Amino acid sequence: MKRKIYNLIDKGAHGSKYNLLFDYFIVVLIILNVIAVALETISGLTPQARNLLRLFEIISVTVFTIEYLLRIYISDITHPAKNRITSGLKFMFSPYGLIDLLAILPFYLPFVIKVDLRFLRIIRLVRFFRVFKIGRYNTTLKLIGDVMKEKRNAIGLTFLIACLMLLVSAFVMYSVENPVQPDKFPNVFASLWWAVATLTTVGYGDIYPITALGKIVSSIVAFLGIGLIALPTGIISSGFVEKIGHSKDPVSSNLCPHCGKEIK
Amino acid sequence: MKRKIYNLIDKGAHGSKYNLLFDYFIVVLIILNVIAVALETISGLTPQARNLLRLFEIISVTVFTIEYLLRIYISDITHPAKNRITSGLKFMFSPYGLIDLLAILPFYLPFVIKVDLRFLRIIRLVRFFRVFKIGRYNTTLKLIGDVMKEKRNAIGLTFLIACLMLLVSAFVMYSVENPVQPDKFPNVFASLWWAVATLTTVGYGDIYPITALGKIVSSIVAFLGIGLIALPTGIISSGFVEKIGHSKDPVSSNLCPHCGKEIK
Amino acid sequence: MKRKIYNLIDKGAHGSKYNLLFDYFIVVLIILNVIAVALETISGLTPQARNLLRLFEIISVTVFTIEYLLRIYISDITHPAKNRITSGLKFMFSPYGLIDLLAILPFYLPFVIKVDLRFLRIIRLVRFFRVFKIGRYNTTLKLIGDVMKEKRNAIGLTFLIACLMLLVSAFVMYSVENPVQPDKFPNVFASLWWAVATLTTVGYGDIYPITALGKIVSSIVAFLGIGLIALPTGIISSGFVEKIGHSKDPVSSNLCPHCGKEIK
Amino acid sequence: MKRKIYNLIDKGAHGSKYNLLFDYFIVVLIILNVIAVALETISGLTPQARNLLRLFEIISVTVFTIEYLLRIYISDITHPAKNRITSGLKFMFSPYGLIDLLAILPFYLPFVIKVDLRFLRIIRLVRFFRVFKIGRYNTTLKLIGDVMKEKRNAIGLTFLIACLMLLVSAFVMYSVENPVQPDKFPNVFASLWWAVATLTTVGYGDIYPITALGKIVSSIVAFLGIGLIALPTGIISSGFVEKIGHSKDPVSSNLCPHCGKEIK
Repeated sequence: MKRKIYNLIDKGAHGSKYNLLFDYFIVVLIILNVIAVALETISGLTPQARNLLRLFEIISVTVFTIEYLLRIYISDITHPAKNRITSGLKFMFSPYGLIDLLAILPFYLPFVIKVDLRFLRIIRLVRFFRVFKIGRYNTTLKLIGDVMKEKRNAIGLTFLIACLMLLVSAFVMYSVENPVQPDKFPNVFASLWWAVATLTTVGYGDIYPITALGKIVSSIVAFLGIGLIALPTGIISSGFVEKIGHSKDPVSSNLCPHCGKEIK
Repeated sequence: MKRKIYNLIDKGAHGSKYNLLFDYFIVVLIILNVIAVALETISGLTPQARNLLRLFEIISVTVFTIEYLLRIYISDITHPAKNRITSGLKFMFSPYGLIDLLAILPFYLPFVIKVDLRFLRIIRLVRFFRVFKIGRYNTTLKLIGDVMKEKRNAIGLTFLIACLMLLVSAFVMYSVENPVQPDKFPNVFASLWWAVATLTTVGYGDIYPITALGKIVSSIVAFLGIGLIALPTGIISSGFVEKIGHSKDPVSSNLCPHCGKEIK
Repeated sequence: MKRKIYNLIDKGAHGSKYNLLFDYFIVVLIILNVIAVALETISGLTPQARNLLRLFEIISVTVFTIEYLLRIYISDITHPAKNRITSGLKFMFSPYGLIDLLAILPFYLPFVIKVDLRFLRIIRLVRFFRVFKIGRYNTTLKLIGDVMKEKRNAIGLTFLIACLMLLVSAFVMYSVENPVQPDKFPNVFASLWWAVATLTTVGYGDIYPITALGKIVSSIVAFLGIGLIALPTGIISSGFVEKIGHSKDPVSSNLCPHCGKEIK
Repeated sequence: MKRKIYNLIDKGAHGSKYNLLFDYFIVVLIILNVIAVALETISGLTPQARNLLRLFEIISVTVFTIEYLLRIYISDITHPAKNRITSGLKFMFSPYGLIDLLAILPFYLPFVIKVDLRFLRIIRLVRFFRVFKIGRYNTTLKLIGDVMKEKRNAIGLTFLIACLMLLVSAFVMYSVENPVQPDKFPNVFASLWWAVATLTTVGYGDIYPITALGKIVSSIVAFLGIGLIALPTGIISSGFVEKIGHSKDPVSSNLCPHCGKEIK
């Protein structure tokens, strides 16, 4: 019986047709749930629409709660441990277990403790984490994740360089533009906001330099922004090219053509 | 006779000089037609200009209609089937057949059924699909298409990651900015519009955060946007590099053309 | 004597120290000239500053005229032909010869024919072409040019795809936004301007959709814009990677290890 | 004793646990210092907060001064020279020595010479250079630096091409838009600011063309901007791919570890 439930809800790569159907059902329910949460934020909704959304929330929370309880039930298969309770806790404190809990918690919380309504609205957004459940169902995501993991040092370094650029340009721009535009550049933090908009080439247009020197600094930062795009792209490109090379190298190439032994 | 028409209008790769000339004539007519449709939308046109555009439309629709009828006529060569009617229908329901029909249909429709004028204006834009006929004449487009097809899973996944980023950032930004700017961030969908403008680094400037927390979230999204550009670029780059490797290493190139032995 | 002048002003790769100095002098003069032309457009200049700029113009035009005449003088070395006049004309109608002429012509033209002053201001910008002379002095530019030339078909195709995207999105956006914003989207050409700003992710913010459907279309176009950046980058990346491969392949790899003959 | 201090503060790659702790302490102090400098620019600070920031400044300057003096003390180990004073000066005029001095100088300067307060505010930003000290502690930065150094010619050339594009488009746009928008495009330098915003796809939206011709020019520049992003990205990508090839193909890997023969 427990084995059957496991086969249905958490089979992984060797899943049956029913397991696949269950996975698709959960994914579709998660997506619909996210849309429902987004719809709730629209102010001009009729009471009927609100009731419909509330009904859908109750149904989906019920489904997610049953799923969560079943996952605790089969946790001795998915998270083997010395005894039943340890494996249950092991699942509950695993990243996916916590996401599953956070997805249903905001529904039950108001029944247990008295919470401010405004705070409730914000905590409701945690329900959104249901979306991350999709990650469990998608194995091809691993590929991109592998390249990102391999290149995480280089990408992190690029981000650090970007942060240094941001800080330097924010300080320079503050000292240049503050005397002329004290309302737009009141402090270094406002200047940082300009630096981010320029370096990432977003350019909202709410804040920009008006002095000649400020425009020169801004131009330099915008060009460095091009470099900021080029650097991680180059790193990730080389990561993917490397992956091609690995998959292209046939197993036999690891054997010496002279002595036939494997070359480590 | 039918063979001659086929040679003229649909010879493909082994086309004669006349076939090439016909192809160029159709392409130029399509481009001129698109420009004419665009010109029609200008409000301050003189009646003379309107008449000229109408005349050009009649001429081009006539040419496209004749071309369409000829293609049906030669469909037993291009779309071989058991009998004449089946091959004709096969062409008519092929993607290019439907595009050809859609390109001329808006002209004839008002004669058959009574249609609302405003609806007419919108349906006229379907004429634009004539442009896609160019695709038929361009064989080098296949190259880029191949890389895109090979990498469609990775590109699709990147798009999915981008959609997740969009949703998460839209929800977060809504909860942060809604209390301060209820007119700019009235609901999650307005927040999504901001998220798209920031993540793709377009940054129109019609909607942007004003709170410190909102600016921090926006900065994170803008930096993730850099990653969003880097990821598909890296994937497509590796796809093109892979193509070079394939075309450079044909199986036969491992054999010496002089002695015929394999070169390791 | 003529050989000496040739050695000084047009020695190319095997230039002496004096030739290098002459080249640097001309490049610096060109840059200063461009700056001077830009300075002339500032409205609040004092008469002294104007006179100084005029003096600098006379000096630099004199230098460029002497250089032009010397190049005609040595044209029988640089552009060998049957007789003296043919080689002179050969230089004068070569791309660099025409640029050299255009750089000095706007100065002499007002003395010969009576020209409208406003037209003069525009023709003066042609002087800017002096900058392109730098191209003659820079040989490393060839490297990037080679990759661009090899990939020109793929880059051209990407541009064609971008143009198709632009047109389709402009037509769609016009039909969606025109009824709501007739002042911002009066015709398809105004819509094209929006499409360019969105697809290239510039996003000035002077024109953007306000309807829900328009925002969805805009979001799709913005994401296609990411693809538009990724595609040529991938193509150019593979071009540079290919170049590395070529330069890495040692000459000996073209020799068959069995028979020793060259493999074409 | 001197050896012990050297081991603690400047051991480099073979550093002990204490050396690592000292490095982390300095890095954290630098980051906190930068944040403190940024906080000082906020106008609405309470006197208590100002005093706290002043106290923190005194403490951190004391630490940085002691570090600087210790580095001079051990300079005969880090910068070996004929005599004690030469090695001390060698350190003081090394790039890191100058940065260390600039980081503490703005604190001591007002005690020595009388300086204008406004000038002081700007010179204080030099303290920010403390951040660059992080560079000393980070060895992985070398990797990215190597690719950038190898490709510096190609990147420089791309930047030169970009500058040419900027100038040409600025001149063209000035002559096109100046007669219609004399307030937005008063001279070529204002036009240059527009050119930078468009070519780097930042697009603040403070300055944009309104004429049909100006919009066409702007569209061309925006598309060239895509190329401007593609070119350096391609160059850097190929640089990283090259690095992979180098590290993968060590000379010794061509010899079988079992039989010692070369593997072709």
